[in-house]
Amino acid sequence: MREAHLDAVGRVDPERLWRRLMEMARIGALPGGGVNRAAFSAEDIAARKRLVSWARALGCSVAQDAIGNLFIHRAGTDPRAAPVMTGSHMDSQPRGGRFDGIYGVLAGLEAIEAMERAGVRTRRPVEVVAWSNEEGGRFQPCTMGSAVHTGAKQLGEFLSVTDNDGVALGDALARTLAAMPDLEQRERKAPAAAYIEAHIEQGPLLELEGATIGVVTGIQGLRWFNVEITGETAHAGTTPLAGRRDALREAIDAINALRELTRDETDTVRFTIGRVLVSPNSPNSVPSHVLFSVDVRHPDAATIERLGSAVEPAVRSAVRRCSVAVNPTLTDDPCTFDPGVVAAVERAARTLDLPFRRMPSGASHDAMYMARVCPTGMIFVPCERGVSHNEAENAKPGDLAAGARVLAAALLELAD
Amino acid sequence: MREAHLDAVGRVDPERLWRRLMEMARIGALPGGGVNRAAFSAEDIAARKRLVSWARALGCSVAQDAIGNLFIHRAGTDPRAAPVMTGSHMDSQPRGGRFDGIYGVLAGLEAIEAMERAGVRTRRPVEVVAWSNEEGGRFQPCTMGSAVHTGAKQLGEFLSVTDNDGVALGDALARTLAAMPDLEQRERKAPAAAYIEAHIEQGPLLELEGATIGVVTGIQGLRWFNVEITGETAHAGTTPLAGRRDALREAIDAINALRELTRDETDTVRFTIGRVLVSPNSPNSVPSHVLFSVDVRHPDAATIERLGSAVEPAVRSAVRRCSVAVNPTLTDDPCTFDPGVVAAVERAARTLDLPFRRMPSGASHDAMYMARVCPTGMIFVPCERGVSHNEAENAKPGDLAAGARVLAAALLELAD
Repeated sequence: MREAHLDAVGRVDPERLWRRLMEMARIGALPGGGVNRAAFSAEDIAARKRLVSWARALGCSVAQDAIGNLFIHRAGTDPRAAPVMTGSHMDSQPRGGRFDGIYGVLAGLEAIEAMERAGVRTRRPVEVVAWSNEEGGRFQPCTMGSAVHTGAKQLGEFLSVTDNDGVALGDALARTLAAMPDLEQRERKAPAAAYIEAHIEQGPLLELEGATIGVVTGIQGLRWFNVEITGETAHAGTTPLAGRRDALREAIDAINALRELTRDETDTVRFTIGRVLVSPNSPNSVPSHVLFSVDVRHPDAATIERLGSAVEPAVRSAVRRCSVAVNPTLTDDPCTFDPGVVAAVERAARTLDLPFRRMPSGASHDAMYMARVCPTGMIFVPCERGVSHNEAENAKPGDLAAGARVLAAALLELAD
Repeated sequence: MREAHLDAVGRVDPERLWRRLMEMARIGALPGGGVNRAAFSAEDIAARKRLVSWARALGCSVAQDAIGNLFIHRAGTDPRAAPVMTGSHMDSQPRGGRFDGIYGVLAGLEAIEAMERAGVRTRRPVEVVAWSNEEGGRFQPCTMGSAVHTGAKQLGEFLSVTDNDGVALGDALARTLAAMPDLEQRERKAPAAAYIEAHIEQGPLLELEGATIGVVTGIQGLRWFNVEITGETAHAGTTPLAGRRDALREAIDAINALRELTRDETDTVRFTIGRVLVSPNSPNSVPSHVLFSVDVRHPDAATIERLGSAVEPAVRSAVRRCSVAVNPTLTDDPCTFDPGVVAAVERAARTLDLPFRRMPSGASHDAMYMARVCPTGMIFVPCERGVSHNEAENAKPGDLAAGARVLAAALLELAD
């Protein structure tokens, strides 16, 4: 690494980064220590204003696009060069943690501040983006800002989506955009030169292995299904078992079959039944209807395709006396990050003498959409016991700063 | 049978009984032909008001006790004599039928109306009771009204029980009691001289054998439990299965173990998981908490005792990483009805020349608690294909009237 770059990376300030994280954590703070900062809410707007004021203090210009993605722009020396981008999101789950998303935005800001303080000019501009509505907690689906930015989805598809209170996304978005009328409006969809997203791992592997940096190689593929089993309700005291069409009994048969299907000695397959609805849901009525969700993920394209295709046959062969419907609700193939960007992240970790491991991401991120339009990678840092989407989410200041240093080093390499 | 009694029995009117049944079936009517009349709901209150208005039109007084049991009183000639009681319940399963419970209440009312029209005075009073919350579909456990009336349980045990929406029984009960403030309030726990409950069979035997009347000899034993499994929520995409404390996964392990425990070649054991609640119940969150009900029944006292005692050990041995609580919510040993009352029912069926058979009851009924405090029996009438706890529940007007005639005859004999 060049001397000037090393100097800049050394100016990443753990205390400043932590202070900004804790200041953001007060916006939408929950009593249990987490945050509720729903997309396009008053809390989201407050966080946007805070971020913009920090960015402007660093001499950066800030723009927003039609879906409210914020772009913090640090100019490069070549006015025609495409920017190197970094960032993440500022919205949270309804009972989310203090680091999910916001860490990647503030780590990017910290990298810019470190460059500024070191007086390093890069050839390419460096941009920090705060993507709108990554969580999808208030307005579904998730990763909306990056999907629209990359052209994978059109904003018009989402304007009439409503939250649980009936508020339309279009109205909440309009209020958000109007809250900072002085921002430059930008419609640029031109690809960046590269994109790197820093994020807490949201899983336990780094902590378990004592690694500080996850060099993320891609995002695993996923298949979601809703399975509906329909039988017939009957009296639990009088109806012989042989005469029942018990929807719950056969749902459990189906789940047992799916467990067999997804059994994996290497513990790589992620198989989750997260949601179950039973009807009539009374102790002495044989259940007539059961709906359950299936979430299967795997980093390998052929494996997730094989598992996804096998879900419906496995369910159908397990269900004998009831009728069954298997509806796919989400299909994402695995994404593989750019070898050049992955190598740059790994090089940065090695140069800074930080213990690292290559790993896929279990969770989805905005980087998934960016990977379709430009060379992309991610940096993970450990979070306590892997707990995320939970108020108890926690991370160490030192690990967070280490991730920001790796980010700064990789951005500097890619921007030159 | 005395001439006056025969005259009264002959005045049981199939059409009037059917009309009242169909009028009640409109209260909480479901599109599929069934009813949803949950205990202490607006529909339950509407049914109570209808019943009280019919009772008063017959010149009866009506009282309610602290748990909302309704007592329709037809005076006898001996003011000190304990009453002969009959009745059943008016609440239904969430997707229940038009005859379960309500038939026994309206058959009792029909018996009183027949006596009234025949001008028969009995020595003992005749009382028709509508027991509160027999089904336990909304608030567990079931047969709550008769349990409290007979002193087997205390009302205070149940006031904080909540339904699936978090409404406390105490609040729903208070609204129900307040809906008819003009009713006499009664705390009488004194035993009746006898109790006879008429009910649809809820099983297929009478129909299969072409019998019109089931002379019920007793009720099989049952054990109910609520099993609560507590783990920890986690991100479904990132958390390896080996590191999860997945409450649903372990709940299914427990249910699989209970299936093994209750496996029975003779298909005599009744084993049902009817109710399952999952939290946070989101497709991409590992479940942290599962509650499920267990319902096990058997007619043999030693067998139900053995099975009931084995439930908690079976659950505990299946649950490995989560914590577990197994709470018995109902423990009923098999009950044998009074030979005198059983003989009176059989005599009535024989005198009226109705095909009958002696049989135990597979379902629990309020008669189980009454059998602890007074001579008790039951009368079954056929229901179509044995289907019950189901909107498709059906019965024939002629069979229902036959059951009401047997009831009237037996009440007249026991009240003299």
